[in-house]
Amino acid sequence: MRLSTSFTKTFRDIDSSETAKNAQLLIRAGFIHKEMAGVYDFLPLGLRVLNNITEIIRRHMNTLGAEELSMTALQNPESWKKTGRWSDDAMDIWFKADLNAGGEVSFAPTHEEPLTNLMTKFIHSYKDLPVYAYQFQTKFRNELRAKSGILRTREFLMKDLYSFTTDEQSHQDFYKKVEQAYKDIFTELGLGDCTYQTFASGGAFSKYSHEFQTFLPVGEDTVYYNKDKSIVLNEEVLLPEVLEDLGVKREELESTTAAEVGNIFTLKYKFSTPLHLDYAKKSGGIETVFMGSYGIGVSRVMGVIVEKFADKKGLVWPENIAPYKYYLIPIGEKGTKAAEKLYKKDPDLYLYDDRDKKPGEKFADADLMGIPNRLVISDKTLEKNSAELTLRASGETSLIPLEKL
Amino acid sequence: MRLSTSFTKTFRDIDSSETAKNAQLLIRAGFIHKEMAGVYDFLPLGLRVLNNITEIIRRHMNTLGAEELSMTALQNPESWKKTGRWSDDAMDIWFKADLNAGGEVSFAPTHEEPLTNLMTKFIHSYKDLPVYAYQFQTKFRNELRAKSGILRTREFLMKDLYSFTTDEQSHQDFYKKVEQAYKDIFTELGLGDCTYQTFASGGAFSKYSHEFQTFLPVGEDTVYYNKDKSIVLNEEVLLPEVLEDLGVKREELESTTAAEVGNIFTLKYKFSTPLHLDYAKKSGGIETVFMGSYGIGVSRVMGVIVEKFADKKGLVWPENIAPYKYYLIPIGEKGTKAAEKLYKKDPDLYLYDDRDKKPGEKFADADLMGIPNRLVISDKTLEKNSAELTLRASGETSLIPLEKL
Repeated sequence: MRLSTSFTKTFRDIDSSETAKNAQLLIRAGFIHKEMAGVYDFLPLGLRVLNNITEIIRRHMNTLGAEELSMTALQNPESWKKTGRWSDDAMDIWFKADLNAGGEVSFAPTHEEPLTNLMTKFIHSYKDLPVYAYQFQTKFRNELRAKSGILRTREFLMKDLYSFTTDEQSHQDFYKKVEQAYKDIFTELGLGDCTYQTFASGGAFSKYSHEFQTFLPVGEDTVYYNKDKSIVLNEEVLLPEVLEDLGVKREELESTTAAEVGNIFTLKYKFSTPLHLDYAKKSGGIETVFMGSYGIGVSRVMGVIVEKFADKKGLVWPENIAPYKYYLIPIGEKGTKAAEKLYKKDPDLYLYDDRDKKPGEKFADADLMGIPNRLVISDKTLEKNSAELTLRASGETSLIPLEKL
Repeated sequence: MRLSTSFTKTFRDIDSSETAKNAQLLIRAGFIHKEMAGVYDFLPLGLRVLNNITEIIRRHMNTLGAEELSMTALQNPESWKKTGRWSDDAMDIWFKADLNAGGEVSFAPTHEEPLTNLMTKFIHSYKDLPVYAYQFQTKFRNELRAKSGILRTREFLMKDLYSFTTDEQSHQDFYKKVEQAYKDIFTELGLGDCTYQTFASGGAFSKYSHEFQTFLPVGEDTVYYNKDKSIVLNEEVLLPEVLEDLGVKREELESTTAAEVGNIFTLKYKFSTPLHLDYAKKSGGIETVFMGSYGIGVSRVMGVIVEKFADKKGLVWPENIAPYKYYLIPIGEKGTKAAEKLYKKDPDLYLYDDRDKKPGEKFADADLMGIPNRLVISDKTLEKNSAELTLRASGETSLIPLEKL
């Protein structure tokens, strides 16, 4: 991408109402725009990061044998009334509106009810199971507070996977595969060494669910951990019987703040019973479908990565999800000629700063935007038929022969 | 994709409340699911079609030099109040909700206001122009009636492109390029020979806008055309002065029904004036930015393609947007062995019907799903080391040597 023809711009100062570091930096670097509190547009560079995260997750979902679909944001109240979650007492983050044609409609805060209802058309027999279905879809939540930038917003992108199995054993087998897939995903996203599978409440139906928590100073959650025993648990299960169950004492646990980036949940029959998602058993008779759900907050993950890696100069993207691999800066006439040639070979590899600006400004923007590799081509580097490569994360500099690029 | 492990199912009969042919067939073939009137989920096969249409349009947008972004569905009322469109009198299809934090919010029926407002942060000087920005984004419209399947829904996917230029001449140059891009897009989508650029009202600010109308028996619009003069115009501009302007007489026009699949619009200063989107001119002084907008209804296009090509056996997808190129049916043990081998070479090419069903049922499903090429491998075809290829559109059959696949 040529910066000279992109509307992307960086900003020195932004609206002081934005207090979260992740949003401040993403706005300053031209990756997102604030539509209103808790609502952010994704600009070309930000959208590329989001798409890169999405692609990594999608690949792992497909490897699990899950099928991608796309549910609507608009939801029929019927299925929510059957599970008892339609009232504002049961869920306090509803966005609802009246239909001009009569009746009410909601804007998806989550999709368990409509997907379970949908599956009653597709699942009738043990032969139809298991079903694994996932989507990348926008969720709407009428949050009272929105102060954490893209970590907690009123509209956000989520990957949600749901499993439908004949029984608990088949469920557990799949659940374990998803655990592993999540670990692989967070490793690929660059969060492997600071993200932990965490015991959380299973609600009324399961003993535990699991969250994936990234240790982070600005995280909204508090978790308790013991590194030797590889145990992390969240506040809601910090109870004597749980500690006994896990074989750890309260005084062996340290606490830290963390951001929840994913969760996996054994739903059992919570939705399939009230929505009558049943199947004919092989041995005869009717059984209720066993369900699980598995979420990753895609835009939240992006915010967590910003918080985790950014430094005082700006953003720092892990190579796997960076919008471009290289930030290309030409200096002088010969440098420009060589840079143009390089850029045209593969425009998708370079954020090419061909603007009429001083090198110092370009260096500052390269740092602010957090592109992992900065390439400078000048008379001096061309004398050695090379470009100067500087790694954003470490600041390490080296000369790279042009033919190697 | 293996049908044996997919939750995709076909249906003989569906809910009689669904009266539109496109939705009836898409539901029967397992491509979409009806959440409620005018609201449809896209299932794995339907999502693949939608993504294929999206990719074709995206490629043409990028060739135009436009940049992709993603605006939110939630919208701040402020910019809408400035243009006078916030009231229900100005727009009768609003979905609005109260924020728990106080104030109101809308669910995007369109994005002119928020994008124009966004651009006031990025456009300050003639040096920042032109800007071409587009997105694929969901629109919400509180339609009173929803009887046309996915041709007119309360929630739909739209590609919207916006141009920001210094003056009318630069706008016209870009507008012409978009005209050509749209013709190329509809040709690539298989609608080239039945989609016409149509004169429509330019509203209060321009003489004309242009729609792209696909002639279609169930289309909601009526258009008037003269094939010899290559003139098509819609009902709202069927006026003496327009006919004189275009050099055609009323009696030279025939009428037909059509579905609007795209529109391109010279907005002039309609949004940039009230939202103060100005720029510093090269010659000094301040000027208002000149705007245009260019839409394509992505999910509507999918519905139009269904209506246009489907026959009594079911869907018929043009090869460019089909979810899979081949529907693969094995017959007998040897046939299954050969089909497995073929499938594993490139699983993304085949909808592989490895279900335990009779060939006749598989033939019927292949027809209903509308996959463009049906491949049957049996003892008989293997005698000639071949597969039997049947084209869905024409029914033509031939033997294809396996090594050519």
